[in-house]
Amino acid sequence: MTFNDDNFMLQGEAAKKLYEIAKDQPIYDFHCHLDPQEIYEDKPFDNIVSVWLGGDHYKWRLMRANGVSEKYITGDASNEEKFKAWIETVSVAIGNPLYHWSHLEMRDIFGIDEVITKDNWKELYDRMNDYIEENELSPRDLIKQSDVRFIGTTDHPLDDLEWHQKLKEDDSFDTVVAPTFRPDEAFVDHANFAGFTEALAEKTDQEITDFASFMSALEDRIEFFAEMGAQASDMSLAEVVYKEADEDELNEIFEKANKGDEVSAEEAQKWQTAVFVELARLYKENHFVMQIHFGALRDNNTAYAEELGADVGFDSMGDQTDLPVHLNNLLDRLVREDYLPKMIWYNLNPAYNTVLPNTLANFQANEAGVHGKLQFGAGWWYNDTKRGMIDQMDNYAEQGILANFVGMLTDSRSFLSYQRHDYFRRILASYIGKWVDEEEVPDSEELLRPIIEGISYKNAEQFFNQKI
Amino acid sequence: MTFNDDNFMLQGEAAKKLYEIAKDQPIYDFHCHLDPQEIYEDKPFDNIVSVWLGGDHYKWRLMRANGVSEKYITGDASNEEKFKAWIETVSVAIGNPLYHWSHLEMRDIFGIDEVITKDNWKELYDRMNDYIEENELSPRDLIKQSDVRFIGTTDHPLDDLEWHQKLKEDDSFDTVVAPTFRPDEAFVDHANFAGFTEALAEKTDQEITDFASFMSALEDRIEFFAEMGAQASDMSLAEVVYKEADEDELNEIFEKANKGDEVSAEEAQKWQTAVFVELARLYKENHFVMQIHFGALRDNNTAYAEELGADVGFDSMGDQTDLPVHLNNLLDRLVREDYLPKMIWYNLNPAYNTVLPNTLANFQANEAGVHGKLQFGAGWWYNDTKRGMIDQMDNYAEQGILANFVGMLTDSRSFLSYQRHDYFRRILASYIGKWVDEEEVPDSEELLRPIIEGISYKNAEQFFNQKI
Amino acid sequence: MTFNDDNFMLQGEAAKKLYEIAKDQPIYDFHCHLDPQEIYEDKPFDNIVSVWLGGDHYKWRLMRANGVSEKYITGDASNEEKFKAWIETVSVAIGNPLYHWSHLEMRDIFGIDEVITKDNWKELYDRMNDYIEENELSPRDLIKQSDVRFIGTTDHPLDDLEWHQKLKEDDSFDTVVAPTFRPDEAFVDHANFAGFTEALAEKTDQEITDFASFMSALEDRIEFFAEMGAQASDMSLAEVVYKEADEDELNEIFEKANKGDEVSAEEAQKWQTAVFVELARLYKENHFVMQIHFGALRDNNTAYAEELGADVGFDSMGDQTDLPVHLNNLLDRLVREDYLPKMIWYNLNPAYNTVLPNTLANFQANEAGVHGKLQFGAGWWYNDTKRGMIDQMDNYAEQGILANFVGMLTDSRSFLSYQRHDYFRRILASYIGKWVDEEEVPDSEELLRPIIEGISYKNAEQFFNQKI
Repeated sequence: MTFNDDNFMLQGEAAKKLYEIAKDQPIYDFHCHLDPQEIYEDKPFDNIVSVWLGGDHYKWRLMRANGVSEKYITGDASNEEKFKAWIETVSVAIGNPLYHWSHLEMRDIFGIDEVITKDNWKELYDRMNDYIEENELSPRDLIKQSDVRFIGTTDHPLDDLEWHQKLKEDDSFDTVVAPTFRPDEAFVDHANFAGFTEALAEKTDQEITDFASFMSALEDRIEFFAEMGAQASDMSLAEVVYKEADEDELNEIFEKANKGDEVSAEEAQKWQTAVFVELARLYKENHFVMQIHFGALRDNNTAYAEELGADVGFDSMGDQTDLPVHLNNLLDRLVREDYLPKMIWYNLNPAYNTVLPNTLANFQANEAGVHGKLQFGAGWWYNDTKRGMIDQMDNYAEQGILANFVGMLTDSRSFLSYQRHDYFRRILASYIGKWVDEEEVPDSEELLRPIIEGISYKNAEQFFNQKI
Repeated sequence: MTFNDDNFMLQGEAAKKLYEIAKDQPIYDFHCHLDPQEIYEDKPFDNIVSVWLGGDHYKWRLMRANGVSEKYITGDASNEEKFKAWIETVSVAIGNPLYHWSHLEMRDIFGIDEVITKDNWKELYDRMNDYIEENELSPRDLIKQSDVRFIGTTDHPLDDLEWHQKLKEDDSFDTVVAPTFRPDEAFVDHANFAGFTEALAEKTDQEITDFASFMSALEDRIEFFAEMGAQASDMSLAEVVYKEADEDELNEIFEKANKGDEVSAEEAQKWQTAVFVELARLYKENHFVMQIHFGALRDNNTAYAEELGADVGFDSMGDQTDLPVHLNNLLDRLVREDYLPKMIWYNLNPAYNTVLPNTLANFQANEAGVHGKLQFGAGWWYNDTKRGMIDQMDNYAEQGILANFVGMLTDSRSFLSYQRHDYFRRILASYIGKWVDEEEVPDSEELLRPIIEGISYKNAEQFFNQKI
Repeated sequence: MTFNDDNFMLQGEAAKKLYEIAKDQPIYDFHCHLDPQEIYEDKPFDNIVSVWLGGDHYKWRLMRANGVSEKYITGDASNEEKFKAWIETVSVAIGNPLYHWSHLEMRDIFGIDEVITKDNWKELYDRMNDYIEENELSPRDLIKQSDVRFIGTTDHPLDDLEWHQKLKEDDSFDTVVAPTFRPDEAFVDHANFAGFTEALAEKTDQEITDFASFMSALEDRIEFFAEMGAQASDMSLAEVVYKEADEDELNEIFEKANKGDEVSAEEAQKWQTAVFVELARLYKENHFVMQIHFGALRDNNTAYAEELGADVGFDSMGDQTDLPVHLNNLLDRLVREDYLPKMIWYNLNPAYNTVLPNTLANFQANEAGVHGKLQFGAGWWYNDTKRGMIDQMDNYAEQGILANFVGMLTDSRSFLSYQRHDYFRRILASYIGKWVDEEEVPDSEELLRPIIEGISYKNAEQFFNQKI
C-alpha cells in the first residue's frame, strides 16, 4: 500500500470488501450546479486551469490562506503561473480535503498517480493538458466514466429549460438531466425581489399584486418544472425561522418590498415563513423533494466581494438563535396542514449535526411508507471532509436509520467533481468496515450489501422517484 | 470473535481484563422509572411485545424513521405484526444504539445469540415468548439476574409510597427500592400547577397562599420521602435559568398562576429560580442528591402528540441562550447561601458536554470531602450511545477526576434495561483499556481496579449514602 | 514500551520518526506569563511545592474536584501536607492533562520515571527537593534545558520594562526576552479604567480628555514597547463584539467611565469596538502580532473569589450570541480601513473550534505573502488537552493550511511548563504520523520535515518577525 493507490482511504479488510460493492454502483447526482448547456454542447475542454481552477472558490480560499497574491488567484496571471501557485499551495495542504480531491482527480481522470510537490508543477501541468488534448476530454466523457444515471441541475424559476429540452431529445445521451427549482429571489430580503416579481408576472402572464397571486405565479413555474421532469427543489436560507402572519400582513409586506421600501427583519421572517409553507405544499403536490440549505453568511469580506463579485470564497458559517424551536414549529405546521413533502436538510454549521436530525426525527411518521422522509443531508460545503462525512453519518445513525440515507451529492460546478462520490464511498466503506472489523456489526453480506448499495445509489433513486 | 459474543464491544487485551472487573460489580440503579407496584407484585410477563415494545418510545421513534405505519407502532395491529415491524426496522439499524441493546437483551436474557434479520422474526418471536412462559419470567428475576442492590424509582410528591412501604416489609426481596422526589408540577408554567397546589394543600393539611407556604408544604412531602428512604430528587427543566425576584413578586406570581391567569416567561423564570433555590436547601437538609435534567422540548409533533399523548417519541433537544451565565449565577447563589447539595446534572443537547462540567468545576470546593460533589451525569436519552458515553467521559475526565464519576443509570421504564449497564461497562472497559494499550495510563491493576469498581458501582453507593 | 517512556504518546512508526524531527527544534515561546525579574535574577528554587503547586490554579481546581479541603490547596497546611494532597489527587486523575504533564515534568526535569501513586508521595517529595537543592535548579536552567530562543512575557502598558532592559544588557543569557503589550484596563467595563487613565496620562505626560487623546497616549506606550523589542500584543475579551459609534458617542462614554459613572452594556461594546479597531491600526503600524483570547467568565464562585482573589481556579467558559456576525464585521472593518495586522485568535469554548477558523478564512487574503495571516491559536486553557489540540489542528487543517500553523505556546506562569511543548510535539507527531500510517498522506520526509519543523518552531519565528 502507498498513498493514493487503489486502497486509498480503505482501512482494514472489511472496508476493502465493502468498497468493492460501492465502487460499482452508478451515481444519482441529485444536486449539482452543472450547466445543462455545457452538457448538451459537450465541447472539449481547452486547458486544465479553466477546468480545475476556474470558478473554484474552494481552491481560491485555500490559496489566500497560503498568502498567495490575488494576481495568481483571480487576477491576470498566465495559466502557467496560476497553476504553479495552486500547486505550491495544495502540495502542503495535508489534512485539507482539497489535498485528497486533487490527488484523486489527477489519478482517476488523468491517470497520474504522482504525489503533488512544489517541484513537479510543470510536469503535472503538461501531462494534464496533454491528456485533455489527446482525448478531446469533454463533459460527457466525465459523466459516462462515472456512470452517472441522473443529474439534477440547479435552475432559476424563470428559466425556459431549453437545454434540458434538447437533452431530453438527444438520443445519443442516456443520462437523465432534470432541472431543480430554486427560487432564491422569492424572499423579500433578496435585493432583486421586485425585479423578480415583475419578471415572474410577465413570464406567467399573471398579475401579481399580493401574496396569493405571487404564490400562484410561482405555482405555474413549479408545474412547468414538473412537466420538464424536475424531481426536486432547492432553497438557501440564512436562518431557519418560523413566524406566523396573516394574509393582510403578508400583503402589506409584499407591497413594501415590491415598491423597494425597507422591510424589517421581522417582516422578512414572516414572509419567509409563509413562502416556505406554501412552497412545501406545492412541492408536495408536485412530488418534488424539498431541499433546504441553511446557515451561510455571504460575502463577508466586503472589499474583496465588491471587487470580485459573489461566490468567490468569502462566505462562512453563521450561528443562529433557537434553531430547534423554529424548526419544530415549522415542521409541525406542515404536518398539521398535511403539506409535508419529502425533504433533505443541510446545515452549514456542524454545531447542528446532532440537533438537526434529532429534530427531524419528530416528524418522520408517515403512512406512505417513505423510508427516511426527512433526510439529514450529506456534509455540505465546509463539512464535505472526512470528519464532516463521518460526523454526519454518526448522527444520522444515532438519530434514525442510516440504511435509509440518500447519500452523497456533488453540489459542484465542475465536471471533475464526480471523484467526490468515489471519495465518499471509500470513507463510507471504511466507516462501516470498521464496525465489522471491531465486530460491532455482523460480518454479513446479506446485511451490508443492500446498505452500501442503498447509500451509494439506490436509496436516492427510490427516494426521488417515490410519489407520495 | 464474532458479533455479540462474550467480547462484544471489548477492543484490545486491556479492555478484556478491565471488563472482568466491571462485569462482576452489582448495580446501584439510582435513577429509573420502574413501577414499584410491579416490583412488589412480581407478576410474570405475558408476551414479548408488551415487555419489549410496550411504552418504549425509543423503538417507536425508530420505526417511524423507517416509514412504518402507526398501526404497527401504537395502533391496533396484532402482537405478531408489531413484532415483525419492529424486527424489520431494528435489523437494518446499524449504528443506532437500539441495534446493540436489542441484541444484548436477546442474548443475555433470552439466551438467543442469533443476528436479528428480517427473515427470522417469527423464530425470535416464538423463542422469546417460549422463554417467558417456560421460566415464568418476572420483574424480580431480571433484577436478581443483574445483581441490582438499589433501585431509585421516580415518584410524584403526593404519592403515598405504599408499594415502597410494602417492599420494605417484604423480607423475601433484598434489593432496596427507594423513592425519588420529582415535583414537575411545582413550576408555574406547568399546566397543572393550580391543581397540584390544591392537592398539595389537602395532602399536607396546610393552607397554601403564597410562596412561603407553598415551599413549606413541599418541605413536608420531602421529609416524608426522606423518612421513606429517599436518597435523591429529580427535576426536568426546559432551560436552566437564574432570575432573582423578591418575596412580593413571587407571591404575585403565585396568585396569578393559582388563579389560572397567564404567567409571563419572565415570571415563570423567576418562580423557577426561587423554587430551585429553596428545593436545593431542602434537599441539602435532607441529604438528597439533587438531580437535574435539562434541555428537552416536548411533544413537538402536536398532531401526533394530541392523538397519542405525552412521552410517545416526539421530544427533542433544545438549544438555550447563555447557559454558562445562568448556571454560574444559580450555583454561586447556592454556595453563598450554603444551600448547595450534592448534585448530578444531565444535559440533553450534547453541545453542552464541555461547558456543563467546566462550569460545575467552579463549585466543587467542599470541606465535607465529597469526591465530585457536582457530578456531570452519564449520557442521557439521545446521548445514551457509544459516542455519547465516550464524549461524556472525555469531558468528565478533562474537567475533573473521572475516577469519581458515579456512572451509569438506566432511566428506563423497562425491566429489560439492566443490560444497558452491561453495555456501559463494556464501553468503559474499552475506553480505559485503549489508554492502557496505548500506554497513556500505566498498566496497573492497583490503579485501575478501584476506578473500574468505582464507576461501575462503588462511587454511586458512596455518593448517595454520604451525608453532608 | 511502558507508560511515560521515550515513546510516550507516540502511536505507530511514523509518529516516532516525526517526533525525532520535532524534539530537536528550539522553542519560540511567544506567549507566556513568566516574570522577567525572576528570569533576570535567576534565583535557585527553594521547594518543589512553591515551584510546582504555587499559583497553579489548574492543580487547585483539580484538587477541589477531588474533595480536598481548601487548607491543603490555598490554606496554611505545610508543604508536605500540600504535596501529599496533590499527589493523592493527581495519582487517580487519568484522562486529565495534569496526569500527563505531571509525569512528564517529573521525568524530564527531575529524572524520576516512576508512576505517581498515593503511596509514593513522600519519596517523590524528597527526590524532587533533593534534585532542586543539589542542582541549585533555577529559572535559566529550565529555559536552557528546553532550548528556548525567545520568550514573550505579558506586560502592563505602563510597565517600565526595566527587567527586560537588564536582560537585553546581560551578555551571559542568549534567550531573547521581549515584552508583550496587554492593555486590559483600556476597556470601560474594567473596574480600574479611570485609575488606569489617570496613570496613563501621568506616565505619557499627556492630557487625556477624550477617545482620541486616550488612544494617543496608548500609542506612546505601544511605541515604547516596540522600541523595547515587543513583537506582540495580547487582549482578553469576554465576548467578541462589533458595534459602531461616532466620535461624539465615544467621548461621552469616555467621560462617563472616567467619572466612574455606570456605563451600559451597549456603551461598553461600542467602546470595545472602537478601541479594538484603533489598537489593530497601531499594532499593524508597529508590526505587532495581535493576539486575542476570548470567552472566559471570571471568578464565578464569588464567595471563594472574594476570599482568595482573582485567577485562583473559578473561571470557566462562556457561550456568546452571534460570534460569526460580530467577528466578520470586525475583521471586515479592519480590511476596509487597511488596519488588519497579523493576528492569533484563541477561543475558550471549543464549540467555536470550527466557526472561528472558518470565519478567519474570509480575511486571509494579503499581498504581503504572509502564510496564515490570521492564525487560529493552539488549544487554550481548558482546550490544552490531547483532544483539544487535535480538534484545533483538525479544524485548522480543514479550514486552511495546517502547515502554516504557528504552533504551541505555554501561556504559563511556571518555568516547568516547557514540558508542554514536548507534550504538544508528541501529539503532533502522532497526529500526522497516523495519516502517514494510514496512507492519507505520503510517507515523504521532503514533505513532512518542513511541516513538523514549521509547526514546532520555524513558523512562529517567521510569523513574529515578518514585517508587513
